[in-house]
Amino acid sequence: METDVTTELYPRERVGLVREATARAGLGAVLLTPGPDLRYVTGYDALPLERLTCLVVPAAAEPFLVVPRLELPAAQESPAGSLGVELVPWDETDDPYALVAARLPRGIAEVGVADRMWAVMALRFRAALPGAGQVAAGGVLRALRMRKSAAEVEALREAGAAIDRVHRRVPGLLAAGRTEREVARDIADAIIAEGHARVDFVIVGSGPNGANPHAEPTDRVIAPGEPVVVDIGGTMPSGYCSDSTRNYCVGEPPAAYREYFGVLEEAQRAACEAVRPGVTPEAVDAVARDIIAAAGYGPQFFHRTGHGIGLESHEEPYIVAGNREPLEPGMAFSVEPGIYPGPHGARIEDIVVCTEDGHDPMNVTGHGLVVTG
Amino acid sequence: METDVTTELYPRERVGLVREATARAGLGAVLLTPGPDLRYVTGYDALPLERLTCLVVPAAAEPFLVVPRLELPAAQESPAGSLGVELVPWDETDDPYALVAARLPRGIAEVGVADRMWAVMALRFRAALPGAGQVAAGGVLRALRMRKSAAEVEALREAGAAIDRVHRRVPGLLAAGRTEREVARDIADAIIAEGHARVDFVIVGSGPNGANPHAEPTDRVIAPGEPVVVDIGGTMPSGYCSDSTRNYCVGEPPAAYREYFGVLEEAQRAACEAVRPGVTPEAVDAVARDIIAAAGYGPQFFHRTGHGIGLESHEEPYIVAGNREPLEPGMAFSVEPGIYPGPHGARIEDIVVCTEDGHDPMNVTGHGLVVTG
Repeated sequence: METDVTTELYPRERVGLVREATARAGLGAVLLTPGPDLRYVTGYDALPLERLTCLVVPAAAEPFLVVPRLELPAAQESPAGSLGVELVPWDETDDPYALVAARLPRGIAEVGVADRMWAVMALRFRAALPGAGQVAAGGVLRALRMRKSAAEVEALREAGAAIDRVHRRVPGLLAAGRTEREVARDIADAIIAEGHARVDFVIVGSGPNGANPHAEPTDRVIAPGEPVVVDIGGTMPSGYCSDSTRNYCVGEPPAAYREYFGVLEEAQRAACEAVRPGVTPEAVDAVARDIIAAAGYGPQFFHRTGHGIGLESHEEPYIVAGNREPLEPGMAFSVEPGIYPGPHGARIEDIVVCTEDGHDPMNVTGHGLVVTG
Repeated sequence: METDVTTELYPRERVGLVREATARAGLGAVLLTPGPDLRYVTGYDALPLERLTCLVVPAAAEPFLVVPRLELPAAQESPAGSLGVELVPWDETDDPYALVAARLPRGIAEVGVADRMWAVMALRFRAALPGAGQVAAGGVLRALRMRKSAAEVEALREAGAAIDRVHRRVPGLLAAGRTEREVARDIADAIIAEGHARVDFVIVGSGPNGANPHAEPTDRVIAPGEPVVVDIGGTMPSGYCSDSTRNYCVGEPPAAYREYFGVLEEAQRAACEAVRPGVTPEAVDAVARDIIAAAGYGPQFFHRTGHGIGLESHEEPYIVAGNREPLEPGMAFSVEPGIYPGPHGARIEDIVVCTEDGHDPMNVTGHGLVVTG
């Protein structure tokens, strides 16, 4: 059962697709160390270690996976162990970079290195392959990774449902007199309890801290009548991420807040409704930005409207001015405008997937301000 | 109080020391993105994000810290905010790589990039600084980072005491009939409860899984008379890491196990006692290896004897054949030989610090097999 799910989410043909894309890009090979690219291609959630683990996909030869001998059992048991890709273990005193170089076809002019490869490893590969230039492998993988498969969309939906359940618990955790840090700790526990494998971030921005989009939880005590921005996310056992922001208030918020919160709701809804194939990310950004600016809050919305999401909580496509690559079905990203006039602020965030004719929301809890006890 | 501790552990003069080391290494600048190098130099535990955060330390100009505007409050509140280093925020549609290039002195021939910088960022810097070669900044930082200050040793001792407390709880968590995964989950909770900020790894290798040094916890049910290898570690709020391995058995282990376990105890003790200034890491490795080989278990000890530890759970110096750089006071590393004959195995691991005339153990729980109810 678990094997079937894995095969659906991490299908065996991806290594071959990457090989074709490598050839099309004119690269001799791509080199993928532990991280989201390696997991996407093989399903192997390898630990990022100083010992080199690297999937090598040459354009014109068979792929192979170099692993430290200590990690060989883990690699064999992982989905990578049943891909038909040769596993090449190396011993403690071997040079794994030389090993890769020796197995690659001669005369490669350029290789792609995983975007998140450690620089020290990329430099070791540069020395071991002195004739080969390096480019980011993201250029090869992005076309594949940006368009989510049906199984990936279901994994994102499962993640969205899990974080929605956490948001439904938040009113029971927020109370005047508690600190942001106390609430954040309870939310982190709930993120795990609701099915995530890992907590990625917990923002609990009360009062003035809500006007800082990336506030860290502090020992500030939450007071009645203070709006609280709760932006939370984690990674599911599947590898796929959640990310959703909702707004809460213990008691009635200030009148000024109610005014701009209505503008924000409209901007976020309109931006979601603008999503469809052929529309550019910058156009989606502009929809939200224009509504907020027209209401006089333009300078108080100073970040992009969203980011792609999948095996990384931030990945392509970015919903930002300047990104003119049209949306396509399967692209998944956040839509999260905010207004931060101080001494409070608000942001509403959903993950949506572009469909054939619109958008499919991964988060389905209400968007309105939640007024609690 | 907290500020004093931070200043002691992350003293303000480090930026200046790195600048001097950069000049001595003949580099024009070092570029440090979020990770252990940045934290070591500034105390700033920055999130690894796709938006560039980078401390730039030119050899012949003032250092500056480039941060996304969204992260500016966090950077200001971090220890980096009070170093007297200029913070340079960039906006969502700026190119931060061009910004760094424009502020660097002209004509730099070579820069050091943080060992763990994402390759995609190193490649962006290569494009923005086309005249500058790249080397790993580790070459500049390693001499500083390898020799722990008194405050760093105290941080490692605090981490060691925390993981020792977890090991003291293990006999209460292990029981025949429980699975490795159940025990591992309880240990992970205890790692946090005993003061760590993060769980880095939990190995619970029962019976045959104990013969795999990097076993992941499974649903295997622990049976009476089966030795269990427990290798655990986490990161403290200080940023410093713990790592310790002890061996347990529910009831009496097999006679064959008792035999090699005695050899292992002797090898681990002798390797610790070999630690002193001037001795090479490969000599420490050989002390453990020779004792194990003399007893006939040479092929069953197939990994290096240890790894450095500090802000990373694996860092320099590595205690391995071929490392001939003599130990110096302040160097901190694991001593962790193992014997894995199957259908069980054992490893004993302490973190030790090289002193003026020997070693200072960070882990002080007993090394013997712990036989539980």
